[in-house]
Amino acid sequence: MVAGAASLRADAARNRELILAAAREVFAESGLDVSMRQIALRAGVGEPTLRRRFGSKEELVAEAFEDKVGAYADLANAALEAPDPAAGFRGFLEKVTAMQLVDRGFADVLTMTFPPTMRCEQHRRRSYEAIERLIAKAKDAGVLRRDFVAEDIVLVLLAHAGVVGGAGKLAGSFSARLLAFLFEGFGLNAGDALPPAPSAAQVYRALLRLHDDKKQG
Amino acid sequence: MVAGAASLRADAARNRELILAAAREVFAESGLDVSMRQIALRAGVGEPTLRRRFGSKEELVAEAFEDKVGAYADLANAALEAPDPAAGFRGFLEKVTAMQLVDRGFADVLTMTFPPTMRCEQHRRRSYEAIERLIAKAKDAGVLRRDFVAEDIVLVLLAHAGVVGGAGKLAGSFSARLLAFLFEGFGLNAGDALPPAPSAAQVYRALLRLHDDKKQG
Repeated sequence: MVAGAASLRADAARNRELILAAAREVFAESGLDVSMRQIALRAGVGEPTLRRRFGSKEELVAEAFEDKVGAYADLANAALEAPDPAAGFRGFLEKVTAMQLVDRGFADVLTMTFPPTMRCEQHRRRSYEAIERLIAKAKDAGVLRRDFVAEDIVLVLLAHAGVVGGAGKLAGSFSARLLAFLFEGFGLNAGDALPPAPSAAQVYRALLRLHDDKKQG
Repeated sequence: MVAGAASLRADAARNRELILAAAREVFAESGLDVSMRQIALRAGVGEPTLRRRFGSKEELVAEAFEDKVGAYADLANAALEAPDPAAGFRGFLEKVTAMQLVDRGFADVLTMTFPPTMRCEQHRRRSYEAIERLIAKAKDAGVLRRDFVAEDIVLVLLAHAGVVGGAGKLAGSFSARLLAFLFEGFGLNAGDALPPAPSAAQVYRALLRLHDDKKQG
């Protein structure tokens, strides 16, 4: 019976990992608006098994993204070490938006808050403190407008999530251009040239294709 | 029999209007990622009836938003008449983003292209021509950076749709701030003060509430 219990525990742990891996894949591809059923299907487990391991979608989201939210907080802390405060601040936003670009779910997770007991939320708070210091450093160096606040980082992430979720194949190109405009708006640039814009034909095709994806249902 | 046929036609027309009104409501509240079933339910008709009137969701979206996309094209044309090119350009973006703010579906529709036979697409093309002229006018007046292109308007609409879809109750406050940063980035502002930022506590609550909405499924 002891061996049997150990094997049950091993099964449970294996299912848990399968589910988390499947959830990360599905969230990255499609964002967070997917059903528990879709995730169970990808993991190759029954929906009841999934619901036994994760009581709510919130819990599943928080666990699936815990490492990435931790990495986000690490990035904010590492940016504080940059000798040039403007480069530190810019580099932080460039790296975080690059993470959003390859993971539609993470693009949304960054603009959410979780119940304070969750580890995800503890990472988020750690990132908030580092961001406050990053902003203060850039302002002290005179490279960031004085009325910029930490909440504006959330604004950047929300706006950038809109580009990631809506621009299809042009997300990368629009992302770079959005950052360039915003950096200029924040007072971080000194009239730098913009990254190249997509052509009208590229935009037409990308947004037509997007619409094809959405017309089902 | 003739009276019977007329009454059938009247029924069909009434159903069509019921469906379009319901679709506009549901799209405005929840964006375009809703099912045909949800729309039929709101309209109080069966799903087969809905599918008989509108062959695809694309067709339903295009018809539901035809008037608003027409109004968008009118706004672009009206902005050309503004005596001050900077005010015309800014006013156009302010009015369009205000339309996005109150209608989550429209926020997405503006960043899509439709098959060229649809009237929606014809309005979109009419708006594109006006926007190209609006940009040229602002550049000629020296109030808009030279490397700004018409495709950047799509970028603004995508980024703003991210704020509308993701910021919950703070969408209005974030929207005003995003525009202010972007106007500065486009070279349109001369160091104007920013609209007030939401507090950290407001952001925390708004994004927690948002997450509550998403944890079902």
